[in-house]
Amino acid sequence: MILTVTLNPALDLTYAVDELRPHTTHRVRTVHERAGGKGLNVASVLHAQGEPVLATGLLGGATGERVRRLLTAAGLPHAFAPIAAETRRTVTIADGVDATGLWEPGPDVTTAEWQQFQLLYRRLLTDATVVALSGSLPQGLPVDAYAVLIAAAREHGARTVLDTSGEPLRLGVAGRPDVVKPNRGELADLAMEASALRGLGAGCVVVSRGADGLFAVHERESWRAVPPEPETGNPTGAGDACVAALARGLRDDTPWPALLADAVALSAAAVAAPVAGAVDEDRYRALRGRIAVTPADLSEEHHPC
Amino acid sequence: MILTVTLNPALDLTYAVDELRPHTTHRVRTVHERAGGKGLNVASVLHAQGEPVLATGLLGGATGERVRRLLTAAGLPHAFAPIAAETRRTVTIADGVDATGLWEPGPDVTTAEWQQFQLLYRRLLTDATVVALSGSLPQGLPVDAYAVLIAAAREHGARTVLDTSGEPLRLGVAGRPDVVKPNRGELADLAMEASALRGLGAGCVVVSRGADGLFAVHERESWRAVPPEPETGNPTGAGDACVAALARGLRDDTPWPALLADAVALSAAAVAAPVAGAVDEDRYRALRGRIAVTPADLSEEHHPC
Repeated sequence: MILTVTLNPALDLTYAVDELRPHTTHRVRTVHERAGGKGLNVASVLHAQGEPVLATGLLGGATGERVRRLLTAAGLPHAFAPIAAETRRTVTIADGVDATGLWEPGPDVTTAEWQQFQLLYRRLLTDATVVALSGSLPQGLPVDAYAVLIAAAREHGARTVLDTSGEPLRLGVAGRPDVVKPNRGELADLAMEASALRGLGAGCVVVSRGADGLFAVHERESWRAVPPEPETGNPTGAGDACVAALARGLRDDTPWPALLADAVALSAAAVAAPVAGAVDEDRYRALRGRIAVTPADLSEEHHPC
Repeated sequence: MILTVTLNPALDLTYAVDELRPHTTHRVRTVHERAGGKGLNVASVLHAQGEPVLATGLLGGATGERVRRLLTAAGLPHAFAPIAAETRRTVTIADGVDATGLWEPGPDVTTAEWQQFQLLYRRLLTDATVVALSGSLPQGLPVDAYAVLIAAAREHGARTVLDTSGEPLRLGVAGRPDVVKPNRGELADLAMEASALRGLGAGCVVVSRGADGLFAVHERESWRAVPPEPETGNPTGAGDACVAALARGLRDDTPWPALLADAVALSAAAVAAPVAGAVDEDRYRALRGRIAVTPADLSEEHHPC
């Protein structure tokens, strides 16, 4: 199976209100709860695609318990390690105009909890062919946590996809993941180009460029994969659908051009679906044959738009 | 002991942010969690005053479990009946300027759960001398739920204080509580005066009037109780501190003038404390001897300010 790792999941709450007016009180019309976190979105997309998947990571407290129950209710296989601190929440306030986000800080993880997670993770690796590691790290974890987990996956013969940002990305790449998937902003934050990130240890660097599709560098080859038209909808979770496709392609040894086409189609179909972690199946089928994948010049990455 | 009933408790979350800007995303600096609901504030004030108290009501789901753990951590004795639906949350966003509130709708309670609660409640009544019933009713409960609970308390020889609003107040009074404590706005919503509410079945009507103290009608007597100066601070929870004092006074058969003086002092001391459910002990001691209680003319209630 594909193992997804979410070290900093969240309980995502969406509140529908008529109009958000600061410094007043609002009755929330409806509350929507979902299990959140990039790795859980990856797992959710793979599960909906019928791919065997298992979600792992860290969950704590009553909020963590709620996330666990939501995963069980969704039928998503999961095995999370417990922590004492409360899993974070995110609150999105949706009024008639747009969304307002509130992101709680993550929990503090102890060294003992991190050790316990690694024991669980190594047990789960025995059945994993690919590991997708996504999102931020909660406080208390070493900043090179992803490098440690990627090295352990390689020892077990599993391939890896890393999707994170900042220092966890820069230090994670030293663990030599098979694929890293930064977006343009995350690359810019590191003041790096895709080929430089490959030089740090990544087998393949796949840069997501929103409506412009993907730009990928693998050994001496590079490609761009572009959708036929811009997709309108909710871009949250599009990167996670891309990671889901990359993980599946790695598992199946899909040749890179076909794999990138699938990743662009699945990402666009995620934009077409109303919530993160879901894809519009009809849109996915309609797009699959229509993604243009062409060899790219490495000089293109200087002007990737 | 004094039994407090909170049928629609909440997990109160306070998020500190730099500035709430609609339609942007905010990193929450700190999260403060507390067990919320008017009846829990009453219990918390009584517990801090060293009075034997037990909190009951309905709690459900992971959010209810979190409330239960917070009560246990605070050392507050509690015995809540379980419901299947999730206990509600409230989110208060505190920026540098003021607070913005988001109130989730309450859970749906089934008939069987309401019956189970009543069995628990009747068991708890065997040790209760006074019952304080506070706050809104969750969906699924009969609107006359408080009348039913008040009648049961009387059968067990316990006195009752009711603090709610709207139809639950109007129908609750038919259960003949010893005291009801509306505030001015709640009375106005019913288009009623204190003596009219007494006519519906309340033994004593105590109207809280913010900085103007209390106005009370009991049989043929009426009083006003006024603090020496307006209190600055956080008025949330002041009414609950008033109910706590009323419950204690009923238990001790404190004469009405002294009881009202205590209620005004404890309310003002709650305003002086930063969070609902707490009182400033120094301020309470300083105020206790300084509350003016004078007989009032019933005609005064027409112009209660």
